[in-house]
Amino acid sequence: MDKSIEQEFHFSKRSQQLKSSAIREILKVTERAEIISFAGGLPAPSGFPVDVIRAAIDKVLRDNGKVALQYGTTEGFAPLRSWISEEMNKKGANITSDQVLMVSGSQQALDLISKVMVDEGDKILVENPSYLGALQAFSVYQPNYIPVLTDDGGLVPESITSQVAKNARFIYALPNFQNPTGRTLNLERREKLVSIMANLNIPIIEDDPYGELIYEGTPKPSLLSLSSNLGGTIIRLGTFSKVLAPGLRLGYVVAPTSIIRKLIQAKQAADLHTCTLAQMAVYEVVKDGFLDKHLPNVRNIYKTQGSCMLDAIQKEFPAETKWTKPEGGMFLWITLPEYIDSTELLKKALKRDVAFVTGKPFYIAPGYGQNNTIRLSFATVPEEKIRQGISILGQLIKENL
Amino acid sequence: MDKSIEQEFHFSKRSQQLKSSAIREILKVTERAEIISFAGGLPAPSGFPVDVIRAAIDKVLRDNGKVALQYGTTEGFAPLRSWISEEMNKKGANITSDQVLMVSGSQQALDLISKVMVDEGDKILVENPSYLGALQAFSVYQPNYIPVLTDDGGLVPESITSQVAKNARFIYALPNFQNPTGRTLNLERREKLVSIMANLNIPIIEDDPYGELIYEGTPKPSLLSLSSNLGGTIIRLGTFSKVLAPGLRLGYVVAPTSIIRKLIQAKQAADLHTCTLAQMAVYEVVKDGFLDKHLPNVRNIYKTQGSCMLDAIQKEFPAETKWTKPEGGMFLWITLPEYIDSTELLKKALKRDVAFVTGKPFYIAPGYGQNNTIRLSFATVPEEKIRQGISILGQLIKENL
Repeated sequence: MDKSIEQEFHFSKRSQQLKSSAIREILKVTERAEIISFAGGLPAPSGFPVDVIRAAIDKVLRDNGKVALQYGTTEGFAPLRSWISEEMNKKGANITSDQVLMVSGSQQALDLISKVMVDEGDKILVENPSYLGALQAFSVYQPNYIPVLTDDGGLVPESITSQVAKNARFIYALPNFQNPTGRTLNLERREKLVSIMANLNIPIIEDDPYGELIYEGTPKPSLLSLSSNLGGTIIRLGTFSKVLAPGLRLGYVVAPTSIIRKLIQAKQAADLHTCTLAQMAVYEVVKDGFLDKHLPNVRNIYKTQGSCMLDAIQKEFPAETKWTKPEGGMFLWITLPEYIDSTELLKKALKRDVAFVTGKPFYIAPGYGQNNTIRLSFATVPEEKIRQGISILGQLIKENL
Repeated sequence: MDKSIEQEFHFSKRSQQLKSSAIREILKVTERAEIISFAGGLPAPSGFPVDVIRAAIDKVLRDNGKVALQYGTTEGFAPLRSWISEEMNKKGANITSDQVLMVSGSQQALDLISKVMVDEGDKILVENPSYLGALQAFSVYQPNYIPVLTDDGGLVPESITSQVAKNARFIYALPNFQNPTGRTLNLERREKLVSIMANLNIPIIEDDPYGELIYEGTPKPSLLSLSSNLGGTIIRLGTFSKVLAPGLRLGYVVAPTSIIRKLIQAKQAADLHTCTLAQMAVYEVVKDGFLDKHLPNVRNIYKTQGSCMLDAIQKEFPAETKWTKPEGGMFLWITLPEYIDSTELLKKALKRDVAFVTGKPFYIAPGYGQNNTIRLSFATVPEEKIRQGISILGQLIKENL
């Protein structure tokens, strides 16, 4: 193979939809140590219970090494699936463990779901703006995106009329501390959304990576739990990436068994099964209630850093700026004065060693007032650096006034 | 969600191609302890270096826990990619580490490759019979399978005429100890295959999960290494599943950078990246030459059990039976007398607590003389049980004579 020659190959039509995420590209830039990065979606490593995970893996390998290192079932490690279904049911759901499929991070669920549900040109409803990784996963299957209206309260359920939604394969929503906006759906909107979609007979993909990272107010019921009374089909995605650690690549899907069966077949073809050792170790970690002790520490990290960022923005950003005040999660969404182009701002910020992500790539449909939005993550930046970085951004914005 | 109601959902056209593997279904039956199973494709757990992996994971988590548990790059852990490219180059390849993509088991490579290369109806060339898992992965993308002739020497390169191969997206081949037949391509056929495909300008997917499990003769050069002189495009798949342990879900693809770039984008959308901890731990295990000490033990397990099975077959099966004599790997391929239906034989065998896999599902195209083939794996069965199981199969076959 002569690597000096850049050969041309034939790629599939669907592969033309593939592009590297703007975020993952900017993450490469932000690997420089001197950069203050508000760009990434990485969780705070100070929240990883390294020693607990280390002890759990060691115990699993000591007691059960040959099982942990052998091929496993596609469905996943049965005790962990039972634990997940029990946790859901404690919070008002009504599911069995065979409605749970373990996946290699919840990103994989997005790929598998669109693989089994979406044909080219099929309508899917997506909050506008929405999580970039989901858009990447869906786009491979060439759907027809229907943007769903959002406001300061998140997704607006009433905007989903039967005409808009007709024949849509699903709606994709992040009810808690949405990525990129940090917004949370209130109870009333949750109930409306579940009822409306139940009436329309369209499944809801409820993606909830951040729900446990709540540091203000009380947890809202999941769409899955609301569907126990309100009906409808919920495909709920969960992950251990934010409550334990993302490097383990461990997430799960909860859905009606007829959908889970299809997803199992798709997963079998895609990667056979999820890492057995990671599943057994995570079960070992969570089975006796470790998360109840651990999560307050994690929430505290996010609360401290999130509050610090909000305070700094209040102090440093011009009055015309608007921003969300999340009750949890990792992100703030900033709407700058309209005459500021966030792409230009990013260029200037990078020169001053501050990184963030512009808002535009998160929008499904082009529209007015998108160029002046930015997403800031406070998850991995210590307070001192947050103040420094926000101060620099504030100066740059004011220079443009 | 009322789980008592079996709802009907709309699934994609491609999902109609999904079915659970006959093998993974039979594996569920064979979980009973009393079953002597020649059915599975599981590697021998006695060959898993549990303590070495355990120590490596512990070291990685102790020294570098927060990195090992954080999100990683889609490409994979750089030192491991370098190690892989160096190992390939020692064996005659000529590649750089940016031609290596780490994947969640080499099954994922099969999915990603067909995702980026195959549109519905596109021709792909596949050895007939071939690995069932590959057929599952490919089928999702609805290709037009073109079966490639095989004989006792494996794939017959001369059968691939320009007419047969015209516009094919790739050929999929397992040159070493093929699954299901156990056959190996000799050097002459390898050279011919690489040359013919280079002339036709069609990539070869060289799937080599078993190559290191060689216990007779000398290793043959990989198609990748032959392409250094003969030209052509090789997409080589490797895995740590058979040389270390499959539960880690760690494989890799080697390909020209323009293909790797597309695969990286597809992997990013599919599952972001491969488990960081598994990659760092495997690098820790392999970096100082552990495999050189370890592989002779693994090969010895397979040689002992493979020879035991061959001896037992020679003694117990009727003279009209034919079988392959593999130089490595995990499988024997048996051609029974033509009037024996292997599906009927399997039913009788299961009643006597012996399991195997019938040959038919491995064929791409229906044809004469497929009903009387079976695949036997000797990888996970101790010698005493091999003799017992083969004796029972021999009796059942003879009862049909």
